[in-house]
Amino acid sequence: MSKFWSPFVKNLVPYVPGEQPKLSKLVKLNTNENPYGPSPRAIAAMQAELNDSLRLYPDPNGERLKQAIADYHGVQSSQVFVGNGSDEVLAHIFHGLFQHGRPLLFPDVTYSFYPVYCGLYGIPFETVALDEQFRIRVEDYARPNGGIIFPNPNAPTGCLLSLEAIERLLEANPDSVVVVDEAYVDFGGETAIALVDHHANLLVTQTLSKSRSLAGLRVGLAVGHPELIEALERIKNSFNSYPLDRMAIVGAAAAFEDRAYFEQTCRQVIASREQLVGELQRLGFEVLPSAANFVFARHPGRDAEGLAAGLREQGVIVRHFKQERIRQFLRITIGAPEQNQVLIDALAGLC
Amino acid sequence: MSKFWSPFVKNLVPYVPGEQPKLSKLVKLNTNENPYGPSPRAIAAMQAELNDSLRLYPDPNGERLKQAIADYHGVQSSQVFVGNGSDEVLAHIFHGLFQHGRPLLFPDVTYSFYPVYCGLYGIPFETVALDEQFRIRVEDYARPNGGIIFPNPNAPTGCLLSLEAIERLLEANPDSVVVVDEAYVDFGGETAIALVDHHANLLVTQTLSKSRSLAGLRVGLAVGHPELIEALERIKNSFNSYPLDRMAIVGAAAAFEDRAYFEQTCRQVIASREQLVGELQRLGFEVLPSAANFVFARHPGRDAEGLAAGLREQGVIVRHFKQERIRQFLRITIGAPEQNQVLIDALAGLC
Repeated sequence: MSKFWSPFVKNLVPYVPGEQPKLSKLVKLNTNENPYGPSPRAIAAMQAELNDSLRLYPDPNGERLKQAIADYHGVQSSQVFVGNGSDEVLAHIFHGLFQHGRPLLFPDVTYSFYPVYCGLYGIPFETVALDEQFRIRVEDYARPNGGIIFPNPNAPTGCLLSLEAIERLLEANPDSVVVVDEAYVDFGGETAIALVDHHANLLVTQTLSKSRSLAGLRVGLAVGHPELIEALERIKNSFNSYPLDRMAIVGAAAAFEDRAYFEQTCRQVIASREQLVGELQRLGFEVLPSAANFVFARHPGRDAEGLAAGLREQGVIVRHFKQERIRQFLRITIGAPEQNQVLIDALAGLC
Repeated sequence: MSKFWSPFVKNLVPYVPGEQPKLSKLVKLNTNENPYGPSPRAIAAMQAELNDSLRLYPDPNGERLKQAIADYHGVQSSQVFVGNGSDEVLAHIFHGLFQHGRPLLFPDVTYSFYPVYCGLYGIPFETVALDEQFRIRVEDYARPNGGIIFPNPNAPTGCLLSLEAIERLLEANPDSVVVVDEAYVDFGGETAIALVDHHANLLVTQTLSKSRSLAGLRVGLAVGHPELIEALERIKNSFNSYPLDRMAIVGAAAAFEDRAYFEQTCRQVIASREQLVGELQRLGFEVLPSAANFVFARHPGRDAEGLAAGLREQGVIVRHFKQERIRQFLRITIGAPEQNQVLIDALAGLC
């Protein structure tokens, strides 16, 4: 460690994202990107912005995008926060809403960035075990806490929690912010944004990286009570006035405005998932029920790490986690039909 | 204040950026944007990236951009950090390198985001008064500190500190990180990046928002010893894996590669500045010596706030700061020749 570092830096354990390989020939099913490109309207909007106006700062508030999101979800733009990917939005949430001395709660099997944020901001946390079917049981969160966060559907399991259960959790924790991280909700879940008008302690995050096919553009958002949004705006305006560039603001807004394309591509991904689940089951895999654009599957007779390595040799990359409870699972992104077929053929040779 | 906020949030005093007006007819000389558009090579590079590949995450390390910056400055890419605008880079610097209990030092008249970052991360600071000519005197920084930061040229004064003086400061503070914020250096200064190989405590930040005409794209950078860069990477990877989107990485890299366009537009801005200074002086203004793409000027017989309001009525916006020591100054961005003429004509009617 350098004497120049702020002391906490040496203890940071950074998040490790899935590999972004330089080889484009790989069948890339490891980071839950959408197999379909972004909306043509998003591309056209960015095209129109690609000119000398890039010399000018963007709107620091991204108002055009906030309004498009508000219109889509039927809320006010004062209930919307936008950021440079939902990871940045989550970072500001941890910083601005979770520092209360009491431990933050999240599932033992979940998005592995959560404990990293806790390290960055010195937030104590406790993990809450999923049940034997890898489901969240809201009853298990009935303990003193400084906030609760979980993805819905959960990652990397894909399992969905009902809005009814979320509402019970909100009512049982009126003094805590409950964050529902809906990165994958459009592939089979129902958004909790419907509940924000009735629960001042609910904050919902979403991303444009999955269902809106814009992982390369870095846009995320949060929707909740204006008082929660104000905390995020205060953090954002003390961190970086202009987190979203001009291309991102117009591209993301147009993606929200193109509802037909969005719904069509989501339907295609869901249909591919259902087909893939069937084929994995025929190969002997146990597949957790997924409401996401990935499946989480284990084979009773094959070591997951070995399977991942065998797939890699055949040019297919999937995600494997070393965490004890899930080390026999593979997380497999739903690709285009031809990619899914390559995967199944490769697995057939390994199982 | 909401019970849900982390307690420090209520005391945050966010940065207030210059106005980004929705009316495009205004002569906008308030946020130091470049009057010329970005390099045509930057536009072309973004054009080539504007396609279905946006469904994929960008390279989390922005390696292509780091290499372009390293090549331009004659350093190794391990000495380069990139971020979502230099404001984000600065935020990570404050978080990762300035938390040592001892006060951070910066000038009393300087970039007003510095005290905001201190508020965000709980960093004690002391300001060091500029001399009567609004210059930094490095001797005045000889006191216990947890770091030193200043823009060079300084903002909003435009005054330049020599590399020789910076080297004295580095040698007098071997246990502190000294950050030279070179947002404006290309308009008449000499970069301290030439010193990084000999001073492990030097970190230099730059932005593509000014001399490279890409304020709308949000890209900034830092260059320094790999040990300092590693601290920033650890923070970044604990905050947001992918701060730069695909368009930003390729557009910024191409902007660095187009040296001829960059040098030509910088020369034009400098020539316009020298002409504007002469015209302001003819109107009776005192103009501080500027090495930036703005001038800082006061009129002995006219109140600055009144002048700013009078200009605004005529469709010209400049920046006025209420801070006591500089409240009789206007900060005026160097525009295109025709914009500068509109400004001079408007001022002639007011002085």
